[in-house]
Amino acid sequence: MTQDRVTDRITALRARMAEEKVDAYLVPTDDFHASEYVGDYFKCRKYITGFSGSAGTAVITKDMAGLWTDGRYFIQAALQLEGSGVTLYKMGEPGVPTVHEFLEQKLGKGECLGYDGRTVSTKEAEQLASLLGKRNVSIKGTLDLIGDIWSDRPALSCEPVMELDVKWAGESRASKISRIRRIVQELGADLFVLTSLDDIAWLLNIRGGDIHCCPVVLSYLVMTGEEILLFANEKAFPCEVEKALAADGVTIYPYDDIYQYISELSADKKVLLCRAKVNSRMTASIPEGVTVLDRENPTQIPKAVKNQTEIENERIAHIKDGVALTKFIYWLKTNVGKIPMTELSAEEKLYSLRAEQENFMGNSFDSIISYGPHAAMNHYSATEESDVPVKAEGFLLADTGGHYLEGTTDTTRTIVMGPTTDEQKKYFTAVLRGALNLAAAKFPYGVCGLNLDVLARGPLWELAGDFKHGTGHGVGYFLNVHEGPNSFNWKNSPARKADTVFEEGMITSDEPGYYVEGEYGIRHENLIVCVKDQETDFGQFMRFEPLTMVPFDLDAIVPEQMTERERGLLNSYHAEVYQKISPYLNEEETAWLRDATKAI
Amino acid sequence: MTQDRVTDRITALRARMAEEKVDAYLVPTDDFHASEYVGDYFKCRKYITGFSGSAGTAVITKDMAGLWTDGRYFIQAALQLEGSGVTLYKMGEPGVPTVHEFLEQKLGKGECLGYDGRTVSTKEAEQLASLLGKRNVSIKGTLDLIGDIWSDRPALSCEPVMELDVKWAGESRASKISRIRRIVQELGADLFVLTSLDDIAWLLNIRGGDIHCCPVVLSYLVMTGEEILLFANEKAFPCEVEKALAADGVTIYPYDDIYQYISELSADKKVLLCRAKVNSRMTASIPEGVTVLDRENPTQIPKAVKNQTEIENERIAHIKDGVALTKFIYWLKTNVGKIPMTELSAEEKLYSLRAEQENFMGNSFDSIISYGPHAAMNHYSATEESDVPVKAEGFLLADTGGHYLEGTTDTTRTIVMGPTTDEQKKYFTAVLRGALNLAAAKFPYGVCGLNLDVLARGPLWELAGDFKHGTGHGVGYFLNVHEGPNSFNWKNSPARKADTVFEEGMITSDEPGYYVEGEYGIRHENLIVCVKDQETDFGQFMRFEPLTMVPFDLDAIVPEQMTERERGLLNSYHAEVYQKISPYLNEEETAWLRDATKAI
Repeated sequence: MTQDRVTDRITALRARMAEEKVDAYLVPTDDFHASEYVGDYFKCRKYITGFSGSAGTAVITKDMAGLWTDGRYFIQAALQLEGSGVTLYKMGEPGVPTVHEFLEQKLGKGECLGYDGRTVSTKEAEQLASLLGKRNVSIKGTLDLIGDIWSDRPALSCEPVMELDVKWAGESRASKISRIRRIVQELGADLFVLTSLDDIAWLLNIRGGDIHCCPVVLSYLVMTGEEILLFANEKAFPCEVEKALAADGVTIYPYDDIYQYISELSADKKVLLCRAKVNSRMTASIPEGVTVLDRENPTQIPKAVKNQTEIENERIAHIKDGVALTKFIYWLKTNVGKIPMTELSAEEKLYSLRAEQENFMGNSFDSIISYGPHAAMNHYSATEESDVPVKAEGFLLADTGGHYLEGTTDTTRTIVMGPTTDEQKKYFTAVLRGALNLAAAKFPYGVCGLNLDVLARGPLWELAGDFKHGTGHGVGYFLNVHEGPNSFNWKNSPARKADTVFEEGMITSDEPGYYVEGEYGIRHENLIVCVKDQETDFGQFMRFEPLTMVPFDLDAIVPEQMTERERGLLNSYHAEVYQKISPYLNEEETAWLRDATKAI
Repeated sequence: MTQDRVTDRITALRARMAEEKVDAYLVPTDDFHASEYVGDYFKCRKYITGFSGSAGTAVITKDMAGLWTDGRYFIQAALQLEGSGVTLYKMGEPGVPTVHEFLEQKLGKGECLGYDGRTVSTKEAEQLASLLGKRNVSIKGTLDLIGDIWSDRPALSCEPVMELDVKWAGESRASKISRIRRIVQELGADLFVLTSLDDIAWLLNIRGGDIHCCPVVLSYLVMTGEEILLFANEKAFPCEVEKALAADGVTIYPYDDIYQYISELSADKKVLLCRAKVNSRMTASIPEGVTVLDRENPTQIPKAVKNQTEIENERIAHIKDGVALTKFIYWLKTNVGKIPMTELSAEEKLYSLRAEQENFMGNSFDSIISYGPHAAMNHYSATEESDVPVKAEGFLLADTGGHYLEGTTDTTRTIVMGPTTDEQKKYFTAVLRGALNLAAAKFPYGVCGLNLDVLARGPLWELAGDFKHGTGHGVGYFLNVHEGPNSFNWKNSPARKADTVFEEGMITSDEPGYYVEGEYGIRHENLIVCVKDQETDFGQFMRFEPLTMVPFDLDAIVPEQMTERERGLLNSYHAEVYQKISPYLNEEETAWLRDATKAI
């Protein structure tokens, strides 16, 4: 996108703002469901700034346009905003105001903030109302000003819905509904409003394609004591899916009708919902008198705690994915410098290898195949414009994943394409030590990500290094690749609650990294599943087992910089990789893998 | 104490309860200042149960008497309560109700809970009122029923007060007052009510002796914009101290008058106080209309962050204390089996060695010299009845500390008196590895105890072991040996906030342990001070430096069970111990220390 177009759009938006007497317009990244990734229809923040990252908030006033984003995107955002006149606010950096602080300082008495309340959470709308109310700033939460100026806006997605058989899901829809309904009733609620798309897909054992790489179905759900109302585009549901849902008490209503339905609730009702996740237009529609019970969605933990069927399936998915990735790494390392190769062509090669696997359902997120300095941008995705040739030197970072009927994968390997420096090897080894130590943790039940994160960061901290992203996130089952609430981080944040206790069956990524802007990037990522270890007088001990089965590149590992225990952890992991992956490789690949997984 | 006397006292209490129409009487451990340790006057909970530990709550009803205490005291409490008819409730164990849960279940409509509001925090009184209010249980918070039956109750302490010269304190009283007054005013408060005794002593640069081992002065303090009112026993203040205080705007009023003073505040005042620390009788005295700003005491962090003078002094104090402890360990190990030796005689020996040091002001807590199985009781203190001979086998655990004008020490060493088993050595080594790894942590500014605790517990968790106490607590400067808020633990608790960010100058203990009931106990404890390390693109890095200078006993260390790095950490620590301590030893002691600190 040229920066001129962004400037034109901002001019058009300011004209609409003037008509509506709005002094600042807030454009979050959210769709109407607080999804992390959003369908094309919802990409208003990208439309108005040009910044394509997955997280960020824009604010446009009469005399400025700003974009707030976090450490993962500082480099990318700076590049994409260049020349657009949009100012980058680096969230979390010293002296940088938050969006709310900025609005508080910028807006004064009699001025007005506008936004589309469907894209702003209830919690945030309340915070803004409280903050700006003190300054006598008014708020209009019912404006879709970007929609007004976006002439070629894509239509709302309406991809076909499929049922996920119980052999994949491990638990029937009826059983899940009954479990969740029991919790809702125990909390004393008459109905439960669920707008998180992955929770709806999990609960109903359905999958769709309404968000790129996220197999969800655009919908809102209301659970009462007797029935489930699913507000969605009926056209997306094949007849047999609609029938199967009906058999379990699920009736489909038009997507937009939810607001009308909510506004007609009788005042004696008690509604359970998660204010942090339900949009503010929705809660503003609730009639006065209705009691709102603000709780985490009761689907959240049951969804995060994978059942035995899901875990066994995930192991299968990860072997298939490991075969594709191992073949990919072999192909990269044996062909680099011999045949033409770019980030995008490598991406295509990997996709074709995954596509050969049975039950492959597509990428679980946009592949990050970043070569050389590109890898320092945490969430870089190659485009036609940014694509570069891959040469026989330095690192290629591949952070990719697939959806299978047997589950979702998310793996990062940093692949040595040729000569690397001692410094690169030192950090490659330090990051790996962190990943291995975290995965090897054994701990009593009750421990959370806040407690364990130092195991991953410690080797980098010793070198006065670090990485500006979380160490790990929960992963869905053939669902969103980023799934709460389990995570690894040393700081708690509302979005990623690192104080979530690890439960048996939770799947989390373990992905420390190290990035040098303009030079190189390193990340090693495995998915690990929490399992029970022994029980002693000191409690029930827990540990992790690796799901991901792909070798770490020995070519940049310095064994002398690892402890004996760490070398042992790597060697036994590599032995398992060889054992599980080699049966699916040809003779040359097998010979290569034997060497790539040899004990050090 | 015989258990019969406890039974008689409970009978007498029940008679008073009947007169006052009280159905349950709550006896916390607190004095009127929420001090951790309390003067003899305040030991009501011990009086009514016989349990002498430093933490616990008693509840007496018509038909039961219960004592709640935490994991540190399970073994000791079980012993001391035996035969008394008092039931032990092990706090935090599965299925054990909390005191509040118990009261909620026990008391019904029309019944009454009684307590002395001066011994119950505002926060707890509010929780009880809310909890029991729902069940129509009334509360009488103005009863001192134990006082009523306690005929030979000791008098309130009135030990002489001394000034702490600025050469010890590092900052003048006037400077501290001005710093704190600025914070109070920035918060918009007219006055600040401070009832925490160590905060008062820190702020005024005074020390006393009103609590055993805690050099505090029994007092309440009110800071206004112009003056400081100190409610205390004037007799405790030598004339020159009173004059010096007056020169800095501090006037002394009678101790009990605080309640009257507070009750006469005019309704337009804004009062800053910490509800969790101020007693409920005090807050109940605040007139309606007065605004209460509930904040942590603004003295808390400045007190915890030691200034450069304090830190330099602490290093001196720890060398003196290290000399005493090193001589003690030498004496123990060379004399055991040759001369008669018991826990108590060893304690006396150590005291005499400390007393030889200049500026020694007494023990910083009751010495824990526990031999063999006694060491499994975390906070055992030998008495005439419990005292046992120390033999030439197993472990002697010595957790002791001293006050010096140069600061407060707190050190634990587990001393090998003779043959030990392989299992004992394994755990001795694992606990030491944890202590060394935590002390060697390097981390960016912002990290807290929750994040680092795994470094200390990890080696035990690997063995499916653990210890049921925090890993470390803040330590005062010639003040309370347990001082908030900095601490190491993997769980947060209201009392010890392990989410406190480590600041340069904070002194914290590092004391993992391992205990086998009826067999042995191991604990290794150093005090460590947080210092700045290098600053990089990833932030200001921090680390710890050891203050404690005492060898760890090589006789139970298994070098092969340590990593090369851990052996290096121990060796460099031991080299520093030898360098700093040996100049103060005689020839034989020096030769012994050279061997005891040799590289492994």
